[in-house]
Amino acid sequence: MTVLILTCEEDVTADMVVVHLNATGVPVVRVDPADLTGGVALSGEYVHGRFRGHLSAGGRLVSIGGLRSVWVRRPGTPAGRAAQPSAWLTEESAQALYGMLRGSDVRWMNHPDAARRARHKPWQLRLAQRCGLPVPATLITTFPRAAREFAERYPDLVVKPVSGAHPQDPPRAVPTSRVAPDTDFSAVAFGPTLLQRRVAKRADIRLTVVGQQMTAARKATAADADPDDVDVRFAAPGSPWRPTDVPSCVTAGVHAYMRGAELAYGAFDFVEDADGTWWFLECNQSGQFGFVEVETGQPIARTIAEWLARPIPEGSPHVNGSNTTVR
Amino acid sequence: MTVLILTCEEDVTADMVVVHLNATGVPVVRVDPADLTGGVALSGEYVHGRFRGHLSAGGRLVSIGGLRSVWVRRPGTPAGRAAQPSAWLTEESAQALYGMLRGSDVRWMNHPDAARRARHKPWQLRLAQRCGLPVPATLITTFPRAAREFAERYPDLVVKPVSGAHPQDPPRAVPTSRVAPDTDFSAVAFGPTLLQRRVAKRADIRLTVVGQQMTAARKATAADADPDDVDVRFAAPGSPWRPTDVPSCVTAGVHAYMRGAELAYGAFDFVEDADGTWWFLECNQSGQFGFVEVETGQPIARTIAEWLARPIPEGSPHVNGSNTTVR
Repeated sequence: MTVLILTCEEDVTADMVVVHLNATGVPVVRVDPADLTGGVALSGEYVHGRFRGHLSAGGRLVSIGGLRSVWVRRPGTPAGRAAQPSAWLTEESAQALYGMLRGSDVRWMNHPDAARRARHKPWQLRLAQRCGLPVPATLITTFPRAAREFAERYPDLVVKPVSGAHPQDPPRAVPTSRVAPDTDFSAVAFGPTLLQRRVAKRADIRLTVVGQQMTAARKATAADADPDDVDVRFAAPGSPWRPTDVPSCVTAGVHAYMRGAELAYGAFDFVEDADGTWWFLECNQSGQFGFVEVETGQPIARTIAEWLARPIPEGSPHVNGSNTTVR
Repeated sequence: MTVLILTCEEDVTADMVVVHLNATGVPVVRVDPADLTGGVALSGEYVHGRFRGHLSAGGRLVSIGGLRSVWVRRPGTPAGRAAQPSAWLTEESAQALYGMLRGSDVRWMNHPDAARRARHKPWQLRLAQRCGLPVPATLITTFPRAAREFAERYPDLVVKPVSGAHPQDPPRAVPTSRVAPDTDFSAVAFGPTLLQRRVAKRADIRLTVVGQQMTAARKATAADADPDDVDVRFAAPGSPWRPTDVPSCVTAGVHAYMRGAELAYGAFDFVEDADGTWWFLECNQSGQFGFVEVETGQPIARTIAEWLARPIPEGSPHVNGSNTTVR
């Protein structure tokens, strides 16, 4: 039973996991869908009520029925590196590859449907609320009046993109920023705007979940930190990430979130306030973990490798083939 | 409790359903996401563990919590008609609109995740097999040798796109075509190719499913039909569509398919062979039904309106908010 990793060629995070998989002796095949129909080939036959499929990459041929898990890391655009790429060839190749894999009984980290859904920030906030995780008061609106009224109720606000996505052309990240109390909100009418109560934080928390395993790291906020440095990605380095325990109320909420989201992997961002409460900011279903592992020594790559290497439990056929259940 | 229809302005099929909804007195709001942030506005607030959201369109304001169902018909690209459209604004608007709707308890026809998954033809074939529906022998491959061997086993073949999608630039449909026995399959290496045993048909079948309701129509194949006219969309008109009964073995398989696919609406294409067996070709989750209703008089639009108008059953909260269950 083979582990399939869908990712691009240069992915050092995937390399970290492959090292552990190799150590356990579990066969691994690494495929970049961009290499369809060059270095990667596929075939699937539907005959007499049965399916037999194969993938070929790097000179190796694996049976789709013989896959134990698929790790969707950073796959390239299907057929993106074909000799004559086109939107049509990409669509045909995506359908062939993902359509066959979706029809198999393989375990996914993460299933494409769960991954796509999990990227919706408004949906994340609602799910976190339902799971009992504290969510800072948030408004997403195109109504300038609603924004003004919200700013009166919560005078200390930050603004951030509604989507996790960043503008790609030119590529840039949009940092979370503080909103001045006398802001003119009329431009809200031209695009949905996400306003959130700023939590006066004493630490940032990164909670990484792999299957049922949780690993938390804490980065203390410097006592003299500028309250305008809201976004940890862009703040001065300050304290390092350190391992920390997860409060039991958070554990229950996070397990419920992972179940509700049908995710096998999730990277949660919280901020800790002066009372020690962890406030949910977001859960990134493809969040990086390398920086945490390097600073804290927490064995996240190994935990992922163990999850991927686990054998498929016996007797788990299911009719729909969507297979988003996290086993 | 309001029915929300997401579609573009000119959609006569939606008009057919709206007529029936209006007759029942159920409030309907029609929104084209392309009109964000022009004629359509939205706002959602996450405070104290609760969500309150609103949509405004055509001068009407509806509560997201007060929606009973969403019909995803032919929605435009979010913010596609904004004064200054951009990929960034589209992404932000899509997140805001669909992210809020996804977090609500509304019933979907069809849920976006189920709709996206259901478009994968290879996945459709596998699900149909698992549900016991007869599927003609099919090969999807980039291996010329596999294609050649398949053609030896099944000398009477058709070829069709792997994806349901059609090339858009220039826009055209790719008809299903017969493959000559002496075909050179070497070009298969350059793009995934779907080959399927041609069923010698005596009729095409369109089976439309709305919730638990099935409506079948049959179009007899002319006795002198050219066997090269495989694709009913491009064949000479011939016999009209006529209502027909659904064999009980098909009924069970189709119900299982709809459950497995988590679809509330599906348009199945079958071909009937000389033995009366219905062979599954595909299930289009957004297939047109107007032409069948017009020719057969079957009340599909009314059935859709009744499904959309059904009240939400009491006591159906759920933690994940993904809500793909077809109730």
